[in-house]
Amino acid sequence: MKKLVLLAMAMMTMASVEAQEPQRLLTMEEAVLGTGLAVENLRCTWRANSASYSVVDQGVIYEVDPKTGARQELTTLEKINALLGTSLKYMPAYQMTGRGTMRFHTGKELVGIEPLRDSIVHRYAPPAGAEQARYADEGRFLYNSGGDLYWSDRGGEEHRITHYNDPAMVCGQVVSRNEFGITEGWLLAPDKMKVAFYRKDESRVSKFPLLDVTTRTGSLVEIRYPMAGMASEQVWVDIYDFESDRTVTLQVTDFDEERYLTNWSFSPDSKRIYVQVVARSQKEMRLNEYAVEDGRFLRTILEERNDRFVEPLHPISFLKEDPDAFLYTTSNRDGYRNIYRGSFAKGSLERLTKVDADVELVQVNGRYLYYTSAEVSPIENHLFRLDLKTGKSRRLTPDEGWHYCSLSPDGRYFIDNYSSLKVPRVVRLASTDGKLERELLRAADPSAALNYGEIELGTVKSADGQYDNYYRLIKPHDFDPAKKYPVILYVYGGPHSQMVQNSFQALLRRWEMLMAQRGYVVFVMDNRGTSNRGLAYEQAIYGQCGKCEMADQVAGLEWLLAHAWCDCDRVGVHGWSYGGFMTISLMTNYPDLFKVGVAGGPVIDWKWYEVMYGERYMGHPDQNAEGYAATSLIPMAAQLKGKLLICQGAIDPVVVWQHSLNFVKACIDHGVQVDYFPYPTHEHNVRGKDRVHLMQKVTDYFADYL
Amino acid sequence: MKKLVLLAMAMMTMASVEAQEPQRLLTMEEAVLGTGLAVENLRCTWRANSASYSVVDQGVIYEVDPKTGARQELTTLEKINALLGTSLKYMPAYQMTGRGTMRFHTGKELVGIEPLRDSIVHRYAPPAGAEQARYADEGRFLYNSGGDLYWSDRGGEEHRITHYNDPAMVCGQVVSRNEFGITEGWLLAPDKMKVAFYRKDESRVSKFPLLDVTTRTGSLVEIRYPMAGMASEQVWVDIYDFESDRTVTLQVTDFDEERYLTNWSFSPDSKRIYVQVVARSQKEMRLNEYAVEDGRFLRTILEERNDRFVEPLHPISFLKEDPDAFLYTTSNRDGYRNIYRGSFAKGSLERLTKVDADVELVQVNGRYLYYTSAEVSPIENHLFRLDLKTGKSRRLTPDEGWHYCSLSPDGRYFIDNYSSLKVPRVVRLASTDGKLERELLRAADPSAALNYGEIELGTVKSADGQYDNYYRLIKPHDFDPAKKYPVILYVYGGPHSQMVQNSFQALLRRWEMLMAQRGYVVFVMDNRGTSNRGLAYEQAIYGQCGKCEMADQVAGLEWLLAHAWCDCDRVGVHGWSYGGFMTISLMTNYPDLFKVGVAGGPVIDWKWYEVMYGERYMGHPDQNAEGYAATSLIPMAAQLKGKLLICQGAIDPVVVWQHSLNFVKACIDHGVQVDYFPYPTHEHNVRGKDRVHLMQKVTDYFADYL
Repeated sequence: MKKLVLLAMAMMTMASVEAQEPQRLLTMEEAVLGTGLAVENLRCTWRANSASYSVVDQGVIYEVDPKTGARQELTTLEKINALLGTSLKYMPAYQMTGRGTMRFHTGKELVGIEPLRDSIVHRYAPPAGAEQARYADEGRFLYNSGGDLYWSDRGGEEHRITHYNDPAMVCGQVVSRNEFGITEGWLLAPDKMKVAFYRKDESRVSKFPLLDVTTRTGSLVEIRYPMAGMASEQVWVDIYDFESDRTVTLQVTDFDEERYLTNWSFSPDSKRIYVQVVARSQKEMRLNEYAVEDGRFLRTILEERNDRFVEPLHPISFLKEDPDAFLYTTSNRDGYRNIYRGSFAKGSLERLTKVDADVELVQVNGRYLYYTSAEVSPIENHLFRLDLKTGKSRRLTPDEGWHYCSLSPDGRYFIDNYSSLKVPRVVRLASTDGKLERELLRAADPSAALNYGEIELGTVKSADGQYDNYYRLIKPHDFDPAKKYPVILYVYGGPHSQMVQNSFQALLRRWEMLMAQRGYVVFVMDNRGTSNRGLAYEQAIYGQCGKCEMADQVAGLEWLLAHAWCDCDRVGVHGWSYGGFMTISLMTNYPDLFKVGVAGGPVIDWKWYEVMYGERYMGHPDQNAEGYAATSLIPMAAQLKGKLLICQGAIDPVVVWQHSLNFVKACIDHGVQVDYFPYPTHEHNVRGKDRVHLMQKVTDYFADYL
Repeated sequence: MKKLVLLAMAMMTMASVEAQEPQRLLTMEEAVLGTGLAVENLRCTWRANSASYSVVDQGVIYEVDPKTGARQELTTLEKINALLGTSLKYMPAYQMTGRGTMRFHTGKELVGIEPLRDSIVHRYAPPAGAEQARYADEGRFLYNSGGDLYWSDRGGEEHRITHYNDPAMVCGQVVSRNEFGITEGWLLAPDKMKVAFYRKDESRVSKFPLLDVTTRTGSLVEIRYPMAGMASEQVWVDIYDFESDRTVTLQVTDFDEERYLTNWSFSPDSKRIYVQVVARSQKEMRLNEYAVEDGRFLRTILEERNDRFVEPLHPISFLKEDPDAFLYTTSNRDGYRNIYRGSFAKGSLERLTKVDADVELVQVNGRYLYYTSAEVSPIENHLFRLDLKTGKSRRLTPDEGWHYCSLSPDGRYFIDNYSSLKVPRVVRLASTDGKLERELLRAADPSAALNYGEIELGTVKSADGQYDNYYRLIKPHDFDPAKKYPVILYVYGGPHSQMVQNSFQALLRRWEMLMAQRGYVVFVMDNRGTSNRGLAYEQAIYGQCGKCEMADQVAGLEWLLAHAWCDCDRVGVHGWSYGGFMTISLMTNYPDLFKVGVAGGPVIDWKWYEVMYGERYMGHPDQNAEGYAATSLIPMAAQLKGKLLICQGAIDPVVVWQHSLNFVKACIDHGVQVDYFPYPTHEHNVRGKDRVHLMQKVTDYFADYL
């Protein structure tokens, strides 16, 4: 395993801010809601097919010439409200669809305007009961209603695409519970004459009851929830032709009926559609080609296999210059998620990005392929330009930190929005050839007067000695190494997460600082299984979720507790969701290490979690009975010694109540005391202002018992 | 209002037990489960139509001649098990149906045996899926299955009485949620040829979802729950003829379709049936007569009306000597529930028991009417014999205390099972003419070695100064008046309850003593609205449940807290159900008085409680919007200052989750902290061994925060 850390950064510290204003401490509202503490930002939006962008500045939208920086006023929020007769308070997210044309969603309507002419191109209000109305193209709007899919034209005439009227048959919506990168229920063909959409039959999926307490008598809300090992949903891809009003179904016969149809893309000529078909086992994937005309299967381009799992997250994309070529990022056969050029004809793959780091494709413009990657450091994200002719790559983001980059459609410019441990935010415009660079914003630190303690970013060896795990450590503002401080471990630990980055304040959750200000040392660390570290690191958890995550967290804590200023008898742990699972796992597997824990929406036994995510990491319960048994927290309830509070959204459709209530039952069965608190109207997370209540409760629990 | 207290008993105290054994303190298991602490008892069962009874003594049943006390062995548990091939561990409850014949339910079968002959008369195993199989008579067994009613004969041949096959139509089961004294779903006619049964249509009643977490994926259990003010169940009485297999429906047209059909009785000749028909408003009742033959309405015998509520609890009964006469206890028109002799012909009532106390009819035998009443004291229960000729009454239970009396069928003898503050239990046989008396058991105090503190029984004036409210007060075993003790109020307070009696240890719940042993003073008091004190006291709460109950409890506490040994800054309160409602009402209405509370299964707003009980005490929400609003705890959540823990059975079908989860939501809405704990597999009460966990949690909460 090659060493991941390219930047010498064993320990970077941020000195306490020397502020002019009188220093004070965070309030709970500030810590949780962040009111007044958002780092200043600049919204930049590229215009379609252009090299110009617009910015929103004090309620005014300006078009900007990237070359000169010259601004031209396009419109204002006031003018938009006057034009539409609306009373929007904030500029909605918009698209610049062409020179002088833009479109956006007001919350009620889809609207197209010509800002310079102060005229409305179209406005479309979806009918009552319509959900998720979105643009297909300028002339068509798609929406869901009662499980079926519809479209309207500009005149508002409604057309029905599906006619099932069956609550167990869902059309045009996200399938497979948003796994495999699925975020949309339909995909418009490039010729705009057809739309592919998902069709999901949930009739075999067991129902789970939720209680809506806000109605007069209380109401049942039943969701379909496919649990690991149980019957799952069946998914098809259908293609609808707007002109002929005809629908065809892709003739998928791979694996069994509970396969996943993921990451679709139409060929540029709209004649073929590519789907990455994954077996329910998730150990096999086939990239298949189908005819758009009649849905018939044409060929399998290539296959992926992995003993643990294959996880496609991006559709293939195409190279204008070469109709036989496609870009492909699903494979991590080389240990990292890199970008490959595939050949339709040969089914072969040629690796383009040759870095030992996970890579994300941004854009291809002719000779150049733009990508971001963790190759500088796992905790940094940088933009690179790969010359497809020479194979040489150039870093476009010189400053350390985490860069979010947005390229102009023509690939000539990019907006680089970045921060690092001590840099709240910089927004800059640069040309991809490196010749032009202009700083657009350098934000101030909004917490300068809040007496923050030191935030330290560093690494601790993983329990197996193979990796450097990154941590952030927050110390009290009045830290005195001669004193002893209670310790709080905040943990998530699950796949596809990264809690520690070299971005502003190292991704600090402000509540950690509030706790530090109240005299705790707070520690947060990424463990094996989390993202951006390559395949072996990610798959280390397979079949035994929680085991090596715990080992790593404990290794981190042991390093921390070796400091004389840590009170080893007062260690607390808090986390939500996977972090709730980790919290209870840690409390019960290391009962002498942790005195107090607060777990939110915890997974208790993976057999109660859903098929897609659950079986990816744990396999099928019949094939990994041992792994499920070894990670279940039900038998561990008897081992609980410390004080544990479990919080749960009472209508959580993600980690359903089956988990935490069964853990509570197990505690009761064993005569073990545990505490519990339901948030009656909240789902998997407690959001909005009620989150202040939640974090006050968490804080009080540590104050009372740690 | 006449003074209730006839016995001078302002304060009775129980000196600490002087025990021989070394004294120790109660464990939580002992306090909650009472293992090893049951007071010895003697099971006495009168044989039908006789003056002899049987006792169970060490697994042997003896028939006893009451005159001489001579015992004859009938059978033993061992013999019964041998005879039936069963392995019963305890002697089941049995009936002596005749000389040498008995019947009982083994848990699986209904069995009739002749013990002296060691022979089985019949044994009947209900078919799979049968619920509530019970004897109709020796030859017939009735049972429910899937909402329909069936009967079987001795040969096991099954006969169907109803054929609805509709989950919303329930036949032969208890209706009106066990209110109005309804405990059975059918009633056999005296001629044993017909059975009257309830039929309930719940199709309009809203459903409430409960979650069964014990199944693989979690399951919905939906109950029908009629909430105050909402659509309720509709009830009919049908009469089935076993021979003709025909069913008729009583032609009830009174009031509207949501009337209650209560307290039915067949005439001795089985030709008429009497039903006390109550309007949904519960302010009117009609005693109606119907023809058994065809169900037709014959006449209304009499009506009751009350501005607050009429609450029939007993069917009428008949006097052999006078076919025009019936005994009637529904009226409390004279301020107390007394016994009246009615005339069918005249519809008139003649008051028989002329005492200012609530009276219960026990039995009539010719010239004598036996009744129990609170006329000696509201906290004592005594048996009286009223001479119907002379109108003179004689008390048959000379000793102070609470007497449970069971008369021989011929009225010549009775078994008196009683206790009082210092007397654990005495069982005696006496003749009703006063000539014979024999003590059968004098039980020892099983808690003698448990270092109980003093239990004091006394009265405090109600908040309106009109009544003496009875309390019990438990002090630590090592009580020192020079010290200050935290105080715990245990409260119920709802109608049809009496927490304080002059029975052994004044109805102490052992947990109170455990708390006293841990250094708390515990106080329990009955308030206005509770039972055994007459109409005005009972109805004082009407329309404003909680208001005068709280006032009385606070009056009691004020008296208590005036003692120098009470720590007024450390007052806690605990109660369940109505007591949970009282707990939260007290915590929020008197936020400066109570520091800590634990409420179980609390009513939060009466609009979420059921129609029958809820509308009796609160009226219809449309007609008493003010009362519902004034007693709702939702707006009071903002007033909560102290620490409050709410415990709830998560599948509570009585006080549904709508209550406590909405209170939690209200607390969250107001940013008020509150604690919560669900018992996932428990209904309205936490029963069995898990109750130890519950009471440990309650105890810990007071230990942590009071």
